Amino acid sequence: MLGNNDYLKQKGCFVKKLNIQLLLTGNELMVGDVIDTNSVMIAQQLMSLGLTVQRKVTVADDIELLIAEIDNISKQADILIINGGLGPTIDDLTAQALAQASNVPLVEHTDALEHLNKWCTLRGAKLDAANLKQAVLPAGVDIIANRVGSAVGFKLQHQQCKVYCTPGVPHELKIMMDEQIIPKIQEKVPTSQHYKVERFQVFGVGESQLQQLINDTFEYWPEAVELGFRAASPLLEVKLTIKQKQDEASLTQCRKMLKQILGDHMLAQVTGTPLTMADYVLAQLKDKKLKITTAESCTGGGIASLLTNIPGSSKAFEAGFVTYSNEMKTQMLDVSAETLSKFGAVSKQVVDEMAKGALEKSGADYVIAVSGIAGPDGGSAEKPVGSVWVAWGNKTKINTHYFCIKANRKYFQKVVATRALDLIRRKLLASTEVPNYLI
Amino acid sequence: MLGNNDYLKQKGCFVKKLNIQLLLTGNELMVGDVIDTNSVMIAQQLMSLGLTVQRKVTVADDIELLIAEIDNISKQADILIINGGLGPTIDDLTAQALAQASNVPLVEHTDALEHLNKWCTLRGAKLDAANLKQAVLPAGVDIIANRVGSAVGFKLQHQQCKVYCTPGVPHELKIMMDEQIIPKIQEKVPTSQHYKVERFQVFGVGESQLQQLINDTFEYWPEAVELGFRAASPLLEVKLTIKQKQDEASLTQCRKMLKQILGDHMLAQVTGTPLTMADYVLAQLKDKKLKITTAESCTGGGIASLLTNIPGSSKAFEAGFVTYSNEMKTQMLDVSAETLSKFGAVSKQVVDEMAKGALEKSGADYVIAVSGIAGPDGGSAEKPVGSVWVAWGNKTKINTHYFCIKANRKYFQKVVATRALDLIRRKLLASTEVPNYLI
Repeated sequence: MLGNNDYLKQKGCFVKKLNIQLLLTGNELMVGDVIDTNSVMIAQQLMSLGLTVQRKVTVADDIELLIAEIDNISKQADILIINGGLGPTIDDLTAQALAQASNVPLVEHTDALEHLNKWCTLRGAKLDAANLKQAVLPAGVDIIANRVGSAVGFKLQHQQCKVYCTPGVPHELKIMMDEQIIPKIQEKVPTSQHYKVERFQVFGVGESQLQQLINDTFEYWPEAVELGFRAASPLLEVKLTIKQKQDEASLTQCRKMLKQILGDHMLAQVTGTPLTMADYVLAQLKDKKLKITTAESCTGGGIASLLTNIPGSSKAFEAGFVTYSNEMKTQMLDVSAETLSKFGAVSKQVVDEMAKGALEKSGADYVIAVSGIAGPDGGSAEKPVGSVWVAWGNKTKINTHYFCIKANRKYFQKVVATRALDLIRRKLLASTEVPNYLI
Repeated sequence: MLGNNDYLKQKGCFVKKLNIQLLLTGNELMVGDVIDTNSVMIAQQLMSLGLTVQRKVTVADDIELLIAEIDNISKQADILIINGGLGPTIDDLTAQALAQASNVPLVEHTDALEHLNKWCTLRGAKLDAANLKQAVLPAGVDIIANRVGSAVGFKLQHQQCKVYCTPGVPHELKIMMDEQIIPKIQEKVPTSQHYKVERFQVFGVGESQLQQLINDTFEYWPEAVELGFRAASPLLEVKLTIKQKQDEASLTQCRKMLKQILGDHMLAQVTGTPLTMADYVLAQLKDKKLKITTAESCTGGGIASLLTNIPGSSKAFEAGFVTYSNEMKTQMLDVSAETLSKFGAVSKQVVDEMAKGALEKSGADYVIAVSGIAGPDGGSAEKPVGSVWVAWGNKTKINTHYFCIKANRKYFQKVVATRALDLIRRKLLASTEVPNYLI
């Protein structure tokens, strides 16, 4: 039976090596005003050490509930991470709850006070009574510095449990976890169990297809290296995981194999925030000092918007054409009225002319043109909703392709945009690999 | 002290009238693979009854952990809603855990089997062993029908606690909660405590400004009607809440007062999924059989994209111009090279000419034109990052306005787009009210 332990083993976790629990506090979490992303972040950071969260409890800013949970969790867990309730207002109760639960007094903490003074000085603000509250902490805690916010974190050994108190502001939490708490927790993982995950962004190959490619190409895949997948729509994320330091050589070998098999289907290894398809296209264009233009019907400016969301995009993007109606395709892009009436707006001939018109009008080097039926209405037996023609290329050669993408309007627009950008990316790389969506 | 109870009272909740707890199950929730939005949805639905979640526990698909939590929570709570673990795979353990916790056998449930048979027949599929597992439920449960998925929900009285088991698929959960569970829970709320929330989307007025307007305009605001706010960026949501049936008349009175004060700052009362600013603009355009065009520099197609995301947008939108470079402003929109060199691309004169050019080229009735510095680079002392000129209007009259919006690139683009669309909305309404961002 594939129970939790097996699932987590599949994920490469040291099941129950450490019992780690989270306690999240905040009234806004209980009434549906905010979505909890902090615990997702913490879980991902722990996963990078091969550790997993055993249990997660969320309560309002209520002193009795908080004390009861701290009391209960610290009897079971090796590590308790409390998130939220460190702010200056009276409904921030973490310090008070932890003091009462561990039966120590609240005292003004010199290091915390110093941090607050510096924080206020830097901002030309005066330390007020509300801020001062943030320096009043349970006696005996160690401060966890916060280099981006006013609230310091702190930690305390309570019974057999190490309790970390962290700020609710996601940005502050992330830095504190990355720089201070995760390294501390890592010390508890034996170095022999050196856990490592490498992530790669991939597009144009599916999970089962990739697995088959590996089986067909290689006689041997090192058992120590686990291959995993995560759909990061519309991209695919491929993960390689090892669980022991001695497996580094196997990891290197597998990374090479993966790169060899995937070729240009692989976008890049992920380090930090994952990039978007538009990031990859724009980087190449800037690198090669080339410009791109867009001629959009069914994506309605969405592709231009993806490109211009990125800082510095003006270096590679000067103009985009949103031509929703037939008249505008003719007027803005010189698509011939005859072609439109003969083949219809959603046709190979029309996207080809749209692409050529946009290149001509903008003087750009590369072009994407799309015309399709995003739905929910507008389809026919011959051209159902989801039909789309994409053209991509440069002055020398324009390619075209038909897709039928069965999805709701927004997802249709997203997939069309990503495929179109990917096709330009491959063209810029002079790639010979054929993505699965073209087959 | 403003503790949890006071916060919840502010929100108009029947504090601790009912102790409602949630138990969420899923391995994917523990390793950071998914963000939990289900509990947010449940909390919002309960809020609509004036009820709040007391405590929320999340665990992996682990039979022992599940039994322990069910056991513990059913000793404290009046209502336990379990979410997830109803699927056909072996890591779906809710039925098994509830059976063990409440010490009843698992039996094949006739109603559930019938539902599964119908479900499979409708899809031309054959009922297999995995599906069959979904009909094996704790003895004595009542089925909660699922009209959109294969898994039925079920409920059981365990000790003093009513336990509801619900599917993890958000869409299925929502329908089951809306149609069946929320009405059941509502029965437990005394009719004298008739709780009602009305929500209104507002733009162009801030919270404190609105409060001041109310104070200045009316001598009397009925105490029974609570005024609340929620920033639903970039729109503002204003809430009116009453807690007793007898206060319906006061609610009607306050709704009228609010509408009178807000005038065209109020977009609409929210019923169902909140609309976007583009929805409102498009609805008006379609209603009046008018067309709009866009001429975008710093928003790079984002405004066109917001409009064309909406089904049926082709009725009111034919063409959009993304003119990032000066050359393209001249070539595509006939902005004079002299105006550009004399005043710069980010100027009143240039957006005015962009707007006129776009109207001329597209033949549309209304136009939005924007030119600004989205950053992070490209600012100067005279025109810092965040500067933007917006033009809006029709053939008779083009208005222009300068804003400086200090925000990161994406938020800058979002605010510019929303204000520009709002200005067109007001123009279409021939509104005389001045939004605060124009003052």
